[in-house]
Amino acid sequence: MASFILYGRVPQTEIRKGNAGSSHEQYVKNPHLDHMEEDILYHFNLGTKTHNLPAMFGDIKFVCVGGSANRMRSFAHFIHQQLELPGDADDIRDICEGTDRYSMYKVGPVLSISHGMGVPSISIMLHELIKLLYHAHCRDVMLFRIGTSGGIGLPPGTVVITDKAVDSFFRPQFEQVVLGKVITRSTELDKDMAEELLQCSTELLNFPTIIGNTMCTHDFYEGQGRLDGALCSFSTEEKLDYLRKAHEAGIRNIEMESTVFAAMCRVCNLKAAVICVTLLNRLEGDQISTPHDVLVEYQQRPQYLVSHFIRKHLTLA
Amino acid sequence: MASFILYGRVPQTEIRKGNAGSSHEQYVKNPHLDHMEEDILYHFNLGTKTHNLPAMFGDIKFVCVGGSANRMRSFAHFIHQQLELPGDADDIRDICEGTDRYSMYKVGPVLSISHGMGVPSISIMLHELIKLLYHAHCRDVMLFRIGTSGGIGLPPGTVVITDKAVDSFFRPQFEQVVLGKVITRSTELDKDMAEELLQCSTELLNFPTIIGNTMCTHDFYEGQGRLDGALCSFSTEEKLDYLRKAHEAGIRNIEMESTVFAAMCRVCNLKAAVICVTLLNRLEGDQISTPHDVLVEYQQRPQYLVSHFIRKHLTLA
Repeated sequence: MASFILYGRVPQTEIRKGNAGSSHEQYVKNPHLDHMEEDILYHFNLGTKTHNLPAMFGDIKFVCVGGSANRMRSFAHFIHQQLELPGDADDIRDICEGTDRYSMYKVGPVLSISHGMGVPSISIMLHELIKLLYHAHCRDVMLFRIGTSGGIGLPPGTVVITDKAVDSFFRPQFEQVVLGKVITRSTELDKDMAEELLQCSTELLNFPTIIGNTMCTHDFYEGQGRLDGALCSFSTEEKLDYLRKAHEAGIRNIEMESTVFAAMCRVCNLKAAVICVTLLNRLEGDQISTPHDVLVEYQQRPQYLVSHFIRKHLTLA
Repeated sequence: MASFILYGRVPQTEIRKGNAGSSHEQYVKNPHLDHMEEDILYHFNLGTKTHNLPAMFGDIKFVCVGGSANRMRSFAHFIHQQLELPGDADDIRDICEGTDRYSMYKVGPVLSISHGMGVPSISIMLHELIKLLYHAHCRDVMLFRIGTSGGIGLPPGTVVITDKAVDSFFRPQFEQVVLGKVITRSTELDKDMAEELLQCSTELLNFPTIIGNTMCTHDFYEGQGRLDGALCSFSTEEKLDYLRKAHEAGIRNIEMESTVFAAMCRVCNLKAAVICVTLLNRLEGDQISTPHDVLVEYQQRPQYLVSHFIRKHLTLA
C-alpha cells in the first residue's frame, strides 16, 4: 500500500531542473504516480513511454486553456505572431491530433489547449495537463483560462478577470466527489496575477476590463436561469431575482469551468487566472444574437490581455 | 408573466403532423418558447429564422449521440451503408460545421451527434436537440447514447445496456440546480428499448452484451476511484472497496453522461437507451493501455447493436 507521506517529495530527477525560487514545487499530488512503469495520458494521446515529454514540453512557462478547439488554434497563431517567433504559424500542428477529445498547440514557452465545455471536461484535461507538466519537469508555470461567459449588468464585450470563482449557491468552493464522499476545495485564484492582468488592460485601453466574481454552473440553460432551454419551470421575474442576487454577491459573469480550474490549480501549486469576455448582458436577455464578426472580436479580447501579460513577462513588451 | 398551465398544450402547427399514437407528445417543457420570435440554437449554429428546421429534420426518427466527433462521423457513414441508402457516404456533411462545439450528421431518418465529455456538455446539446426536434415537428423519436465506459468485473469489450443510470452514491437520480435550488429527477430509461436491444445482441452473437446499472460521475480520475490522476488521496484497497460496493449495487460500468441523458429524455417524453462498451475492467486497473485497433473495434460494438435495432424498426433486417 502506498505511503501518503510521499506527497511533498521532489524526485531526484526533478532537483536538477529546479531553480532557487521553485525547487519545492511539485504539481501532482499523487504518491502512486512514482510507482507506475508507464503513464498513458489517454485523452491527449501521449504517454511517458511513447513520447519524450521533457524534450517536448520542458520549456513551457505559460499554459492557456479555453473551451473551443478552433479558438485555441487561433490563439496559438496569434501568440506566435505576438512573440515574434521564427517559422511559419501555419506549421504549428495539433499535438493531440491522434484524438478528437482535446486540441493542443505549442508555441515557444506557451501551450494552448482546448478543454471542451463544463467542469467534467476541463477536469479530465487538467489532470492530464498537470501530469504532463510533472513528467516534463516543468517549473514556474502559470495557467490562464481564456473563455466566454454571460455578463450580469455589464455591456457585452466587457472582459472579467475573476476574483473569486463561486458555485451556483455563490460559495467560493468546489465540491469533488471522491469514492462516494464529498470533498470541498477552495477556489481562490492568484491575486497578483489578477491585479497584473488588470494593469495590462489599462495599458491596452482597447476594451472595458474589470475584476469581479465569476459563477460556475453545471448547465447552460436551467442552471444559469435561462428562459430559452428545452426545460424551464420559472418565470422572468424569478430569473431576474436570482441574477440580481448574484450581482449583489459580486458576481459579474457566469461560465461553466472556473471553480474546478481554480480548485485544481490551487491544490497543485499552479498560479492561475480566469479571464472571460461577456457575450451578452443576462439582465437583458438569454439568446446570443450578436453578429458573428462581433462575437469573434469579443473572443479575441482575453487573448490580447494574456498575450500582453506574457510579452511583459518575457520582457518583450 | 408566463402561465405554466401551457405545459401540455400542443401548438396548432403541431397537430397536423401528429399521428394517432403520438399527437399528445410534446418534447419541450417550456412555456416561454412559444412566445419567442426567433430561437437561436447557439451551440449548433442553427436557428428558426435562418434554417428551415422542419424541412431539414422533420423525418428524424432515431437520434444517436456519443462523446467523440470522429466516432459520430464514423457512425453516420456506417449507418448510411447499413440502411442501404442512395448516394455517397463521403457527401454526408457536418450540419454544425460553422461551430466546433458539436458535430451533427443526418443520414435518412437517423441523426448522429457528438456531445463532448461530461454532464454539462451533453446537457447543452440535449437542450438544443430537444428544441430542434420540437421546431422540426418530429414525432416518435428514439434516442440512443452509444459510448465508452469503464467496466466493473466484466471482460473488456463487453457491451452494457443501461438498466438504471445512477449517481456516485448509487442513487437512480439526477440533481439539477435551478436558480440556486436543487431539483431531483428520475433517471429511469425505457425498459422495452433495453430488452429489445438485448434481443438484438442475441441475434448478432458477435460480442458479450448485458443489461446492468451504469454509474455516471462528474470526474474521470478521483470521481471514478482512479489511482493515476494528478490528484489521488486514497489507497488501492479503498478504491477496490468502492468499486466492489458499486458492483454489489448492480453497477457494471462507469461513464460520465448517462444520468442527465436519462433524466432529460424522461422529462421530455423521449424514449431513450444507453449502450456503452467497456474499454477495461476497473477491478484490474485504471489505465487504458489496450492497442488502438482493439479499442476501435470495441467502440464499433454499440454501433452494430443500434444499427441492428434501427434496421429492424425500418423492417430492413
